[in-house]
Amino acid sequence: MDSHAKIEDKMPAHIARYSVHDVRFPTSHSLDGSDAMNKAPDYSAAYVVLHVDGGANGHGMTFTIGRGNEICCAAIAAVADLLVGREIEGLFADMGATWKLITGDSQLRWTGPEKGVIHLAAAAVINAVWDMYGKHLGQPVWRLIAGMAPDEMVSLVDWRYLSDALSPSEAIERLQDRASGKEARMLEMETTGYPAYTTSAGWLGYSDDKIRSLMRAALADGWTHFKMKVGGNLEDDSRRAAIIRSEIGPDRFLMMDANQVWGVQEAITNMDRLAEFDPWWIEEPTSPDDILGHARIARAVAPIKVATGEHCHNAVMFKQLMQANAIDVCQVDSCRLAGPNEILGVMLMADKFDIPVCPHAGGVGLCELIQHMSFVDYIAVSGNLENRVLEYVDHLHDHFLDPVRTKNGYYLTPQKPGFSVEMKADSIESYTFPTGNVWAS
Amino acid sequence: MDSHAKIEDKMPAHIARYSVHDVRFPTSHSLDGSDAMNKAPDYSAAYVVLHVDGGANGHGMTFTIGRGNEICCAAIAAVADLLVGREIEGLFADMGATWKLITGDSQLRWTGPEKGVIHLAAAAVINAVWDMYGKHLGQPVWRLIAGMAPDEMVSLVDWRYLSDALSPSEAIERLQDRASGKEARMLEMETTGYPAYTTSAGWLGYSDDKIRSLMRAALADGWTHFKMKVGGNLEDDSRRAAIIRSEIGPDRFLMMDANQVWGVQEAITNMDRLAEFDPWWIEEPTSPDDILGHARIARAVAPIKVATGEHCHNAVMFKQLMQANAIDVCQVDSCRLAGPNEILGVMLMADKFDIPVCPHAGGVGLCELIQHMSFVDYIAVSGNLENRVLEYVDHLHDHFLDPVRTKNGYYLTPQKPGFSVEMKADSIESYTFPTGNVWAS
Repeated sequence: MDSHAKIEDKMPAHIARYSVHDVRFPTSHSLDGSDAMNKAPDYSAAYVVLHVDGGANGHGMTFTIGRGNEICCAAIAAVADLLVGREIEGLFADMGATWKLITGDSQLRWTGPEKGVIHLAAAAVINAVWDMYGKHLGQPVWRLIAGMAPDEMVSLVDWRYLSDALSPSEAIERLQDRASGKEARMLEMETTGYPAYTTSAGWLGYSDDKIRSLMRAALADGWTHFKMKVGGNLEDDSRRAAIIRSEIGPDRFLMMDANQVWGVQEAITNMDRLAEFDPWWIEEPTSPDDILGHARIARAVAPIKVATGEHCHNAVMFKQLMQANAIDVCQVDSCRLAGPNEILGVMLMADKFDIPVCPHAGGVGLCELIQHMSFVDYIAVSGNLENRVLEYVDHLHDHFLDPVRTKNGYYLTPQKPGFSVEMKADSIESYTFPTGNVWAS
Repeated sequence: MDSHAKIEDKMPAHIARYSVHDVRFPTSHSLDGSDAMNKAPDYSAAYVVLHVDGGANGHGMTFTIGRGNEICCAAIAAVADLLVGREIEGLFADMGATWKLITGDSQLRWTGPEKGVIHLAAAAVINAVWDMYGKHLGQPVWRLIAGMAPDEMVSLVDWRYLSDALSPSEAIERLQDRASGKEARMLEMETTGYPAYTTSAGWLGYSDDKIRSLMRAALADGWTHFKMKVGGNLEDDSRRAAIIRSEIGPDRFLMMDANQVWGVQEAITNMDRLAEFDPWWIEEPTSPDDILGHARIARAVAPIKVATGEHCHNAVMFKQLMQANAIDVCQVDSCRLAGPNEILGVMLMADKFDIPVCPHAGGVGLCELIQHMSFVDYIAVSGNLENRVLEYVDHLHDHFLDPVRTKNGYYLTPQKPGFSVEMKADSIESYTFPTGNVWAS
């Protein structure tokens, strides 16, 4: 779909119109990405282009797993409509206010608030505005944000519902305390990169032989942290865990991901059994909404860590997961949370609560986007790499103009201006649902 | 929009197709429904008809406040599509399984899960299935559910994420304990009705004179509980509260509703000031997602009660609000939660935690739907009317074929088969956005 221009020419650079694209990849054919809850996902992008008269266009997206992507596209149209006619300099001048503009329409807010489809759509549009901002300044987004002064960075965040856990003034002080080592950490990221882990080998739909051969290939590539899916039949989970542990040996890290299929007591019981394979963390042991349930599980399964976040729908939920000692690992997602502003609020709280941020990635476009925020986290916010790894899945990167690059198990810094989310025009066309040639045939 | 029939004739009664209608009422013109968060709502229904070959059609809806209603309509189409071709007897035979079918498509679930637009859409479709079921049996939905045996009623609920708070077997036992007085309570509801309270006079956009005259009219009609909106300027809130308290006297009940505009500490500070008007409860003092924040507010403002729920997006959140002692009043909403099944799960937990259920209503269609569940709550679940009142707003009922009826501040039992949610065909046509004559002119 395509909006009409509302504003005539000869204005300062402004958003003239937007286009929304329902892009889906038929990943369910190979069971890439299969897990106990999501048995046959078609990795999809609800993709938006903000067309700028007099400046670079902004590209953004949110991520879904197939059906329902069209609903997110409808929501993106409603949200992007709020920006048509806006001058880009005005949007960039106060990106905190821009976030509130995009998330604050009271009628649209009713359908969330700040959750589900409308928040996924806000993420897509906010990601596009940041892409536009980075291109406008000729900088990758990570460098743009990491280079901000503490007060500017803190002003990006909506503190209304967060300040009981961390006040803006305390956040500024914490960033000021971290300022001294920033240059060195930026240089370290430019040379070594950010440590990653791989989920490419552990999907639930893969055969034992496929798991074993993928695991060996990953070891040869230098990976040290491996994630497997659990939550199917417990005997199958145990057998697959035994295979992976035998391949990686006792010293490398094994993470398990139940993708929400267990109840609270069931999670505790099952992890008691799977503990023999020495998992570093159990991810999404139950409903992503169950803060108190996660807290109970965390107490019961320690020293196994509890991780969640890819379905944690906003910063208010992350705040409580931290306040309740419910998580040991914070897995923000760049398409579930509404862009860098909200992720930054979560990272600032995580730093205060001393919880490592290990973002969710994979899917399509998630690695491209979230890497920027992990670089920001290390350079400007936490200044810490201990217990921190960023998820990596080696699918679908070739559809992007500036795909992620990894080396020896590290993400390397993107260098091109923007948010690395711009998809190749050919890919958008071919994979558009249902009319692109991939789906029409 | 309208789906195509997928199934040929001469089958047992089945859902042949569905139609979805974007129905909006221009309520923002009169500031009916205005509050601190939602300054100019256009009360809207994302409305669905399940067209049955060989049986009565099912009508259902979810509620929004205007923009974004089209997104819910797109989501309803995706959800309703799961039912096309299904035989209705099979759906009715296990309504718990039917709920899981409607909410369980893994690709659609990703866009929630169980929250926001996709859950609002599930509510619309599940409400339509219950309307169809009631019409099929020739009974109003409240009588259908209240008449179920305990095990059948408990089987309606998805217990996966709830059983750590209340197990299905304990729920059955509790219902069995309540069985003895059911006949008498059903008769009481048929004669007296369920106690209500009114929000019609306290909207934020109304002038002081309008509030005063509406309040006098409501007193003359026999109302004893009155709700006002707060969360604007604190001086204005105080002035309006003083007017209302002076009109209703010291013994009637005044409730306040902040519609989420405050942070946690701000809520505590402001209620310290507004306490002089002796409010019975403060509703939505902060983010609906902030369970721990509500708990802190509840401790600080006691004996003023804390109420929330109209934006509480699923039963897992209600479970935690109860476990954390965060609410004193449980305000379920028949379009935010996914229909009678999920509401019943919340009512069963509320009974165990001894928290009164005082549902949210108003809007359009909300009173028509939720009254059924309050009758079920009293007759079969809680058996208790203490501290229980059901919201009533006297807007837009004339668009329904079986509108709510109140007498002396009580809701009277609906008697027609179904869920009372069927809208007049003329109303649907005239108010369809943007093509109906109300919007086109």
